[in-house]
Amino acid sequence: MNQIKRLFGWHAVEAAIKHTPQKIVTVWLDAKRRDKRIEKLRLLLNNLQIDIQSTNRGQLDSLSQRANHQGVIIDVELPSEQNEEQLKDVVKQSTEILLFLILDQVQDPHNLGACFRTADATGAHGIIITKDRSASVSPTVYKVASGAVETVPLFKVTNLTRTMEWLKKNGIWLMGTDSDAEKTVYECDFTPPVGIVVGAEGKGLRRLTKEHCDLLIKLPMYGQIESLNLSVATGVVLYEAVRQRSFVKS
Amino acid sequence: MNQIKRLFGWHAVEAAIKHTPQKIVTVWLDAKRRDKRIEKLRLLLNNLQIDIQSTNRGQLDSLSQRANHQGVIIDVELPSEQNEEQLKDVVKQSTEILLFLILDQVQDPHNLGACFRTADATGAHGIIITKDRSASVSPTVYKVASGAVETVPLFKVTNLTRTMEWLKKNGIWLMGTDSDAEKTVYECDFTPPVGIVVGAEGKGLRRLTKEHCDLLIKLPMYGQIESLNLSVATGVVLYEAVRQRSFVKS
Repeated sequence: MNQIKRLFGWHAVEAAIKHTPQKIVTVWLDAKRRDKRIEKLRLLLNNLQIDIQSTNRGQLDSLSQRANHQGVIIDVELPSEQNEEQLKDVVKQSTEILLFLILDQVQDPHNLGACFRTADATGAHGIIITKDRSASVSPTVYKVASGAVETVPLFKVTNLTRTMEWLKKNGIWLMGTDSDAEKTVYECDFTPPVGIVVGAEGKGLRRLTKEHCDLLIKLPMYGQIESLNLSVATGVVLYEAVRQRSFVKS
Repeated sequence: MNQIKRLFGWHAVEAAIKHTPQKIVTVWLDAKRRDKRIEKLRLLLNNLQIDIQSTNRGQLDSLSQRANHQGVIIDVELPSEQNEEQLKDVVKQSTEILLFLILDQVQDPHNLGACFRTADATGAHGIIITKDRSASVSPTVYKVASGAVETVPLFKVTNLTRTMEWLKKNGIWLMGTDSDAEKTVYECDFTPPVGIVVGAEGKGLRRLTKEHCDLLIKLPMYGQIESLNLSVATGVVLYEAVRQRSFVKS
């Protein structure tokens, strides 16, 4: 199932042309803009045989709900965000060793975008986010994800702890990242089906989320700063799962 | 040895107050601004007993060389960038198993900032960059690094391949990250002294840089996208060194 998502601004549009040109539904360009950048874009779109709607600033403002569109807006077909029931179907039907990334109210679109990229690269089966107070797929997320919003399912759930309990009952171990954890990521067994649970920037996991994890883990920190960038820390943990699983396979 | 670095804009100034208040030399604020955000900043600075220079927009423009200062500029004392000779001294004098991060013309300040953070956390002995075509410590880098520009030495070298040859002759193995590498990062031995060499966003290592590496390594990629975010990939490799070394120690 797909949905149409409206993106605007140069970077998002350029990312769409680069990563998913076949998913572009409509492009609107400011007819008055005649600079090199927009001419290059017209050429690219023409080569891809994508129709361009020439329009004016007023309509672009209205189409983007007055966002900073920079004279260019596109509608692109993206996989729909999925709900808790669809997540359950994936879990029940999968024959693979599942790997989920669970983000507890992560709000920075750059971090979410980078997490999409890493989730794709590590073969994760989806990203689970909360309906409230979470970054969702925005033009920035789309751009930073470099195509991975196409390939990694996003599950939005209303009640995260309820979802976590269901996942645990269905054989998925939940590993929460927490700087106060006693065990390091290297003492954690990622070879069974797992969900890696990551809290918001600067806040960490909420109390209830933490309590519903099977195990809390941390990255060793040998320096003076308190924390890593969220998407870097998430990448290290996801890749530790990849490492452990590759050695089990061979 | 320290140098005075001029930073501007809210985020950089807030980062300086949070991470290195004792290193702030001078603060200039736009005397005409009277909003809540600037009042909160005045209060913070007063509590830290840091003098504030009230000034006008014209002087702020001139102090920041017409950058987007948002009405606030600070001078902060930072460790000086070091040169090739100072790098050689560190290598010769160190009794630790060295770990360097070598960035070959990395230009995105967010990536450099996040690399500083990870280099601090993994106990790396420094970041080596090229004098030309590299991001250096800017307000954005300072902010994203969350204090790590204070703690991780930055070495700027004129001729990267010459420096790489010197490092190799002095017992440091150079591991280049390259998506076409045959070996994965998990097949690489990080227990001797190493320098991890990372190329620019979207470009990778330059040909000469690649040729001067002892070994090329890649991260396994199980998805459809071509590459990870640079700072995420670098974090995974640096932490693989940490993992291997922690198991050697114990």
